[in-house]
Amino acid sequence: MEKTAVVLLSGGQDSTTCLYWAKKNFDKVYAIGFNYGQKHVLENEIATAIAKEAGVPYVIHKIDTIANLHHNSLTDHSMDVCKEKPANELPNTFVAGRNLIFLTYAAVYAYTIGAHHLVTGVSEADYSGYPDCRNTFIKAANAAVALALDYDIEIHTPLMWRDKAQVWQLSDELGVLDLVRTKTLTCYNGIPADGCGECPACRLRKAGLEKYLSTKK
Amino acid sequence: MEKTAVVLLSGGQDSTTCLYWAKKNFDKVYAIGFNYGQKHVLENEIATAIAKEAGVPYVIHKIDTIANLHHNSLTDHSMDVCKEKPANELPNTFVAGRNLIFLTYAAVYAYTIGAHHLVTGVSEADYSGYPDCRNTFIKAANAAVALALDYDIEIHTPLMWRDKAQVWQLSDELGVLDLVRTKTLTCYNGIPADGCGECPACRLRKAGLEKYLSTKK
Repeated sequence: MEKTAVVLLSGGQDSTTCLYWAKKNFDKVYAIGFNYGQKHVLENEIATAIAKEAGVPYVIHKIDTIANLHHNSLTDHSMDVCKEKPANELPNTFVAGRNLIFLTYAAVYAYTIGAHHLVTGVSEADYSGYPDCRNTFIKAANAAVALALDYDIEIHTPLMWRDKAQVWQLSDELGVLDLVRTKTLTCYNGIPADGCGECPACRLRKAGLEKYLSTKK
Repeated sequence: MEKTAVVLLSGGQDSTTCLYWAKKNFDKVYAIGFNYGQKHVLENEIATAIAKEAGVPYVIHKIDTIANLHHNSLTDHSMDVCKEKPANELPNTFVAGRNLIFLTYAAVYAYTIGAHHLVTGVSEADYSGYPDCRNTFIKAANAAVALALDYDIEIHTPLMWRDKAQVWQLSDELGVLDLVRTKTLTCYNGIPADGCGECPACRLRKAGLEKYLSTKK
């Protein structure tokens, strides 16, 4: 039987790597993205270009409600992104409930097209403190979406235990390191490819690439 | 410590009964409703009036995306509501993913106001085939929202094992049987109080009331 997967694609390093991982591991691949009021809707355009180049159908779902419920620096234009992770609290980039909302919509999309697999790029390595990137959360979310729909569905997290250097390694093994480096958007300040270089996402991405390239020599 | 609950309030018989159950069982009660493109947005107005009468703050969140993902007769104006439950499939009133989306938004709302309790009127009795009304689903959803937010939260389902007659009994015990009968909207065709009398929701509500009133005599 043909195996079909839906990839949650934001156009960043992680989800783009997952897109190519899915293309290798499934017969048919679809992708879904979200416009949830994030400041950098450029990421939707970038993800559209990435999906097109990968030959994968891509849908973007607009969700208005997330920004209204919980203030965070990714959707609130009056807040700056923290440059450092705070010691005793979550970074202000935490968008409460986001991953469960995304996984639910992605699961409903999978259900409507007859796909039984979801792929998401969440990771516990390089842990930023987001509770909804933890493996235990993914397992609970998997049970919840499968029971909500009474439908067999498996959430795959190929990056769960990989640090950023190992994510670069995976993209290299998949033959897309250059594509990921030059065409994705990871930066919290909305600058594609190598980004602003200063936000936590850019620094993590850069340090991972340097580490991977140094071990490769 | 003060116990605060958030009730998912649609303005129907079940959620209105839950609202008064919550008022009895918690120190502070808030309510949340959703405008998800349902044909009968009248239910939002009715819920607003019910919350006002109960003295409970009520917020309505607009969610555009549910109707786009999965066709169903509650959001699609070109579909009629099934009059009978189909033998081997779900009724076309099933809105895939709806309860998990609602519970997630309600949990995020609870998180932002410091409430640790959610109350929802789902029930396995009089089971209509909706997988996301089952107790197993609620348990999985509870784990998923608590882990997503890293926040203690308890989902209460006071109607889970009550048939409609027993729900009428509960509203009577809470002193609101007449209020529930005359001011709520349960009908799939959007007619308040005793409704159209023909849709599955009206027939279930009416049969339950007759059964309860006959046992009370």
